[in-house]
Amino acid sequence: MTRTPLEEGILDEIRPKEDETRHILDVAKRLVSRIEESGQASPMLVGSIARGTWIHGDRDLDIFLLFDPDLPREDLEEKGLGLARKIALAEGANFREKYAEHPYINASINGLSVDLVPCYRVESASCIKSAVDRTPFHTQYIRERIQPFVDEVLLLKQFAKAGGIYGSDQMTEGFAGYLCELLILQYQGFRPLLEAATQWRPGVLIDIEDHRTRTFPEPLVVIDPVDPGRNVSASVSLTRMCEFIELARGYLAQPSRSFFFPPKKLVLSIEEAASLLSSRGTHLYAITLPTPPYIEDIVVPQLRKSLDALRAMLDRHSFFVNRADCEMHEDKSMLLFELLIDDLPAVRRHAGPPVWNRVNAAKFVEKYLSADESGFFSGPFIEEGIFVVEIRRPYTRAIDLLRSDQVLQVALGKHVKQSLEISRPVNRGIECYQEEFAPFISEFLQKSSPTVWIERSEKKKS
Amino acid sequence: MTRTPLEEGILDEIRPKEDETRHILDVAKRLVSRIEESGQASPMLVGSIARGTWIHGDRDLDIFLLFDPDLPREDLEEKGLGLARKIALAEGANFREKYAEHPYINASINGLSVDLVPCYRVESASCIKSAVDRTPFHTQYIRERIQPFVDEVLLLKQFAKAGGIYGSDQMTEGFAGYLCELLILQYQGFRPLLEAATQWRPGVLIDIEDHRTRTFPEPLVVIDPVDPGRNVSASVSLTRMCEFIELARGYLAQPSRSFFFPPKKLVLSIEEAASLLSSRGTHLYAITLPTPPYIEDIVVPQLRKSLDALRAMLDRHSFFVNRADCEMHEDKSMLLFELLIDDLPAVRRHAGPPVWNRVNAAKFVEKYLSADESGFFSGPFIEEGIFVVEIRRPYTRAIDLLRSDQVLQVALGKHVKQSLEISRPVNRGIECYQEEFAPFISEFLQKSSPTVWIERSEKKKS
Repeated sequence: MTRTPLEEGILDEIRPKEDETRHILDVAKRLVSRIEESGQASPMLVGSIARGTWIHGDRDLDIFLLFDPDLPREDLEEKGLGLARKIALAEGANFREKYAEHPYINASINGLSVDLVPCYRVESASCIKSAVDRTPFHTQYIRERIQPFVDEVLLLKQFAKAGGIYGSDQMTEGFAGYLCELLILQYQGFRPLLEAATQWRPGVLIDIEDHRTRTFPEPLVVIDPVDPGRNVSASVSLTRMCEFIELARGYLAQPSRSFFFPPKKLVLSIEEAASLLSSRGTHLYAITLPTPPYIEDIVVPQLRKSLDALRAMLDRHSFFVNRADCEMHEDKSMLLFELLIDDLPAVRRHAGPPVWNRVNAAKFVEKYLSADESGFFSGPFIEEGIFVVEIRRPYTRAIDLLRSDQVLQVALGKHVKQSLEISRPVNRGIECYQEEFAPFISEFLQKSSPTVWIERSEKKKS
Repeated sequence: MTRTPLEEGILDEIRPKEDETRHILDVAKRLVSRIEESGQASPMLVGSIARGTWIHGDRDLDIFLLFDPDLPREDLEEKGLGLARKIALAEGANFREKYAEHPYINASINGLSVDLVPCYRVESASCIKSAVDRTPFHTQYIRERIQPFVDEVLLLKQFAKAGGIYGSDQMTEGFAGYLCELLILQYQGFRPLLEAATQWRPGVLIDIEDHRTRTFPEPLVVIDPVDPGRNVSASVSLTRMCEFIELARGYLAQPSRSFFFPPKKLVLSIEEAASLLSSRGTHLYAITLPTPPYIEDIVVPQLRKSLDALRAMLDRHSFFVNRADCEMHEDKSMLLFELLIDDLPAVRRHAGPPVWNRVNAAKFVEKYLSADESGFFSGPFIEEGIFVVEIRRPYTRAIDLLRSDQVLQVALGKHVKQSLEISRPVNRGIECYQEEFAPFISEFLQKSSPTVWIERSEKKKS
């Protein structure tokens, strides 16, 4: 592995410090002992700390509690949570129950965020009963191979974090830690991976164990070495994949520290945002709603679905949307729309049947002959063989549509819909700027790809 | 032929009066004698007067001067026009030269508008040297057959005139007199024709002599009995055909005098037009130009072509057009556009290459990295694998686009372009209302099919 002085310098900054390592491993060892002592489950340290691929400052410790696979599922949840809770209590820790595919305990212990996750101790990854059962196999697979590449993994993780593409959560739709490790194994290093990525296009297939059993629709496919039927990078969106391609090209062309420690994104003041918005000339609308009381990975896809449905509704009413985005915060979430048009004439074309469809044509004409003339404008008249009438547009102002019950009629996420039924204030223009959403709105108004952001900042420095 | 009392009453109004007939035939006879006396050509009375199918009040007399087919074309034009001119002079008439496929004389004689048209006396319609040579054969064909149906033809012509679909000129795109006669021959009467028309759809084929030699793309095809390779109704647009279908249905369902003598179209006052426009909420724009100094059948298609091209230009710039129409007057012509949008934000999306097209992607990004930031807004950023940048819209106001030279860059008709280069004032809103175009604008704002217009008026009466 050849590394540049820049990369060596980055590594010096991101490698965990000795006392940090000692502290984390001490806590881990203590918790592992507590589990062993319980006699109920066997402990396993998993995640980046188990693999030695964590970055200075990371505070996430993942410990799995492996139970006998014959235990019924309900018992696993009850016993598993019971044991995890007991351990957290013994540590005198603050903790809470969380839920992924099944429940686990997240506890705050000696400054670390510790996940205590009950799972089944299965024979092989092909016998798993739930997704978490797979994790121990991942850890084992990586531990057996990653030793020579640990520094390379650290560089990649830091690079991906800096580019905003690290994490397989629903909000990021990016690269998980495990995926980073597999990519490094495949290409045998950070730079070889970047070189390869510059040539990627949708349809990349990586299958380290050459054991794939099916095809996958996602743009990036990395077959799980411990499960031939799973794509590890299923969570990576086309946009995140392309951003990685572009980051790789940008870094290789002009390596700089900013690709690992990016310039801070400036949050616009309300005055700056107002001025930017006014120069764009667009019409900004925000619907704010109480965040549904579920985890991010449940709420974010619902917010996205609702955003898409409302965007389609606006477009259908000819309030053309330039861009839209959503943001989930602890208490409130925001659906943000930037419209090109927010005000339309009362007239709207409405096409009817062709003239030669005699029955429908007669019905159509009769309807408008007997209608109150205030309900429509011109017509019916014939255009290219079709009857056309000019009727009154149901909503001439986007704000009226967004404040109407139409919002609840589109395909919203279930919990988002419940929230919107409770409260859905609509703001327009600079009133969309609420202090807690200022970073979100700032980024929305100044949107650029990560590489463009980095390179533009570099340019300004020089 | 069974006719209703309504139809008999209409016939009483539209049949030529005895003294009218005498006067017209006297003039015709005198002109025919003059041509015979010249010894240069043989005269032939053609058109509706020759066939006895003219309507009370018609003042058009068509007399053809048939020359030997061995005469060279230039000599025909010279000798033919010379003779026609001599006859007009002998009548002491005002006259002027006109031009269809070749030149003729239009003279004002005893209150009649007389066309004196030189043509070749060919053996059969298949040997014609120009379109006018066909006319004598039409006259002969109809004269030999129309006698029993003259009243039916009169009803149809009056019905078509009232519906605004009579005339094969480029502006009307409707039914010529000869076509009306053929339709009556085919269906053996006015009512049988209407009955049939209620069932028409595009693709109707009528071939009285059953001698068609090719297929035709037009929606209505009526093969010329004297020329198997010609569609007599080539000029009938789909819209006019459909309006005829609808008029037929409307009349048969509820016959009324209005189908022959329609209620007068009301011309809006400027105040009424302003109020109507304001309730529509749309944005009206008119370009007025000097009418090119050519006949209607040359200018009108050019106006239409220019209208379509400018409409496409407006749509391309996102100034969406609801409707557009044009009108040709003697000195001035108008291109009229009704926009749904006439004001847009400065921001405009501009999609670039896909990220995996490495060379073009790099060029695209570099262009906007090195560009002056005042020239664009956000980006480049990546959306669904494509680079996107938000640039400055070239025209944010429709009026600026319509007043720019862009208007001259689109596919205009040649002579219309020359006129627009001389002068093209653009009006907006109610300023489009110019006294001489008031009927045109009134009809534009109150557009409806002829049948709807007639039935709505009937409804208001009762």
